[in-house]
Amino acid sequence: VTVTDSFDPRTGRRVATIPDSTPCEVSSVLSRSVSAAVALTQSSPAERRVWLEALADSLTAERAELAELADSETALGLPRLQGEVDRTAAQIRFYASVAVEGSYLGLTVDDKTTTSPRLVRINQPIGPVAVFGASNFPFAFGVLGTDTASALAAGCPVVAKSHPAHPRLSKRLASLAASALQHAGAPPGIFGEVSGIERGIDIVRAPEIRAVAFTGSQRGGLALWRTANERQVVIPVYAEMGTVNPVVVTPAGSIDMDAIAVGFVRSFTAGAGQFCTKPGILFAPAGSGAADAVARALKCESPQPVMLTQPIADGVDIGVARLVESGATIAERSVGSMSGWSADALVLAAPLEAITPNSPLLDECFGAVSAVVEYDTIESLVGCLRKMQGCLVGSVFGPEDDVDAIRVVPVLAALAGRVTRNDWPTGVAWTWSQHHGGPWPATTVPAATSVGAAALGRFVRPHTYQSFPDEWLPAAARRDNPWRLPFRHNGVLRSAPQRS
Amino acid sequence: VTVTDSFDPRTGRRVATIPDSTPCEVSSVLSRSVSAAVALTQSSPAERRVWLEALADSLTAERAELAELADSETALGLPRLQGEVDRTAAQIRFYASVAVEGSYLGLTVDDKTTTSPRLVRINQPIGPVAVFGASNFPFAFGVLGTDTASALAAGCPVVAKSHPAHPRLSKRLASLAASALQHAGAPPGIFGEVSGIERGIDIVRAPEIRAVAFTGSQRGGLALWRTANERQVVIPVYAEMGTVNPVVVTPAGSIDMDAIAVGFVRSFTAGAGQFCTKPGILFAPAGSGAADAVARALKCESPQPVMLTQPIADGVDIGVARLVESGATIAERSVGSMSGWSADALVLAAPLEAITPNSPLLDECFGAVSAVVEYDTIESLVGCLRKMQGCLVGSVFGPEDDVDAIRVVPVLAALAGRVTRNDWPTGVAWTWSQHHGGPWPATTVPAATSVGAAALGRFVRPHTYQSFPDEWLPAAARRDNPWRLPFRHNGVLRSAPQRS
Repeated sequence: VTVTDSFDPRTGRRVATIPDSTPCEVSSVLSRSVSAAVALTQSSPAERRVWLEALADSLTAERAELAELADSETALGLPRLQGEVDRTAAQIRFYASVAVEGSYLGLTVDDKTTTSPRLVRINQPIGPVAVFGASNFPFAFGVLGTDTASALAAGCPVVAKSHPAHPRLSKRLASLAASALQHAGAPPGIFGEVSGIERGIDIVRAPEIRAVAFTGSQRGGLALWRTANERQVVIPVYAEMGTVNPVVVTPAGSIDMDAIAVGFVRSFTAGAGQFCTKPGILFAPAGSGAADAVARALKCESPQPVMLTQPIADGVDIGVARLVESGATIAERSVGSMSGWSADALVLAAPLEAITPNSPLLDECFGAVSAVVEYDTIESLVGCLRKMQGCLVGSVFGPEDDVDAIRVVPVLAALAGRVTRNDWPTGVAWTWSQHHGGPWPATTVPAATSVGAAALGRFVRPHTYQSFPDEWLPAAARRDNPWRLPFRHNGVLRSAPQRS
Repeated sequence: VTVTDSFDPRTGRRVATIPDSTPCEVSSVLSRSVSAAVALTQSSPAERRVWLEALADSLTAERAELAELADSETALGLPRLQGEVDRTAAQIRFYASVAVEGSYLGLTVDDKTTTSPRLVRINQPIGPVAVFGASNFPFAFGVLGTDTASALAAGCPVVAKSHPAHPRLSKRLASLAASALQHAGAPPGIFGEVSGIERGIDIVRAPEIRAVAFTGSQRGGLALWRTANERQVVIPVYAEMGTVNPVVVTPAGSIDMDAIAVGFVRSFTAGAGQFCTKPGILFAPAGSGAADAVARALKCESPQPVMLTQPIADGVDIGVARLVESGATIAERSVGSMSGWSADALVLAAPLEAITPNSPLLDECFGAVSAVVEYDTIESLVGCLRKMQGCLVGSVFGPEDDVDAIRVVPVLAALAGRVTRNDWPTGVAWTWSQHHGGPWPATTVPAATSVGAAALGRFVRPHTYQSFPDEWLPAAARRDNPWRLPFRHNGVLRSAPQRS
């Protein structure tokens, strides 16, 4: 039996050892998820909302204990982790409300012609989903995070992989979920958990699993994507992976460089720099003194990052060495605490010419490390942006009438899933209009989002029923519209009927 | 320079030889498509509708000549081909109207809280799309077929691969499109065409191309999917591929087996059986006399199929031999004309037990070949259906109160993209509610459709703009809603404002 160790990042000491799931346990989780999928196909979004609200309630009720457990495995700090529990509970409620609203079902009816048959189109859940949460958000992107919540809301059972960076918390959350969902009346098998690297690969290969959701590194996400592509029945892998998010300060935007420098440092060092939305490069006009201002701000803030795992802490040193080799220089360093898995926070300066097609500046360095790059002309900046990898967020700082900013926006939009103005990229609102995705390799499916209402769309597929009697249709698609769905009738979009 | 030969299937004689595109020509087509993509991003759906209607008009105007040219290369017959030109023109107009309606843009605005930034989400075109049309529908799924029309409607330039089964028609359609679009004022490069097998692979590898759409065989579609997955920047491949579509006749549905047999024969022999929606297996109750009834019907109809290409004609013989080896017996054969690329039309009978996991009965045999399989119990039928590959359409024949049919529907729905009742699977309406897709390997992306309004969704991706001044947003997303889009505001779906 393989095991997973739980460490305290502040000391680097092992505090617990947890046996991984056995293949037999995995089989049992998978087969229960298949039974749950059948039951879930019959469930209404309103029923699922009851279950999901019970789950959110139980997270909130256990907030203090959960945050302490998470802090002991992640060193992310109690205030941040308590807030993250609340966010996680709130986003579970949000996805439940999105399901109840019902647009995600895409109900569409065509029956106006006598020559064509009556067609009814509706989305239905795809079946059990394997969820691989992230190390850096143990709640919001963890085993009960955004992927799990949106899959459950859409009517799919979840088999979550326990995260090796917080294995005790993963188990605790799994048992909390099993208990809360069961007491609320959800079908057995709606949520299961497995642990161990090999068991993670097993679930991606399992015929029972119909989709994979992943948040984390490019290496991890692409490995799962390749594994899924080797299945006999290939399934979609929705991987959201770290790349480099650019921030552009225009000449007109650089008037108060000191304020921008402080904001930049706070953004790239938040969570010890372990955010997929971390600003990775700040592009500023030559002569704006950006590198000096950022160096001063870093010195003033003097963070002492403690990283989630030893490989992440080691990766900071390796990444910085690669950046220096490629022509970047260290502008300022805030030395870590020297105990446990500490790492330095650094800002580097690099010339625009260092950004060649294979430059390490174009790869994510996971940690509180970012670079300042000065540009001479907007054209040279645009040429450089076009060399970057697809990313989650691009940002621009400039006033409203700024022609340079307006020139840069379409370039950032081509590169990213989200573009912010005078806002830092960190901070992802979970609303109807959020898009947390982006072109390859920021995600494997650029049209999909892992945060926001559209997240449910990943876990359904359309079915069209031709010439069906009403009683044969899924409940949602019947003429009396029992779920009060908004729908399209002969091409005309109709709002949902009022609920009584 | 490699060449593509054009043949007359009725004689098997080569009637023309066409030089393939050179790599230099392909580069030029690709670079013009990139320029067009920039222009198209600025275009409104209403502008694109003008261009697309001009294209539809020119197809209609040349109907007679186009159908004759197509018939000389495909032997599909003038009435069918003239009808297909009309369908193709109509579906071009339909996609244009779907774009103008604007729901595909998914405009979503959140601005209700003072703590969250204003977020605006809108879909935008992904850029140049490579289209690989099908052999069997030279118009409706050809270089100007459903993939091209939906990509153009969504604002993406198209680079279409000429089809080797109708190379002269492909060139003719490409020049007709270039001329019609140019006269209507569309940007140069909005449509380009390339020919030659290697050139097809080149465009899938080209960095300029942002998505691939394909209709055809599993072998062809999966080869392109693999090629795209080896790119540095992987792109989505929307391949719709042939599998086996099951038809279930329940005991209660088998009262008039003679009528069903005639319908079945007409459906599986339509277009010489060269339909991706061809019914591949008819499941009928033991003792219903289905195989005999179908044999009689085939004898009575006595079709003489002429196939599109020599490999397809040869494939019929090879496929039938494999079926016979696997335990099927030939119930009736309608012998082909013996000239050109003729093939026989056949119905086979097979026992349910012959459908083992690797049985040839589970693979598409492209041509006028289908099998009748008798079942003893609904449970054994369901067990057998669960062994089948994902497919485009499942059909069931039974009366409204038929408990057996109601038992079978969810099994067919799990297997297929569309389920029909008392309707044959052939015939795909291009409406708002159509879903022409299905689980792997019927398609590479089971949530996507190649026919129907949702086809546009394959060629856009969402962008979220955070804290943007109105003037910085894409025109479609501005507060005055210049395109009169339906949109969602703080979670509430709003109909489109009236057009003046």
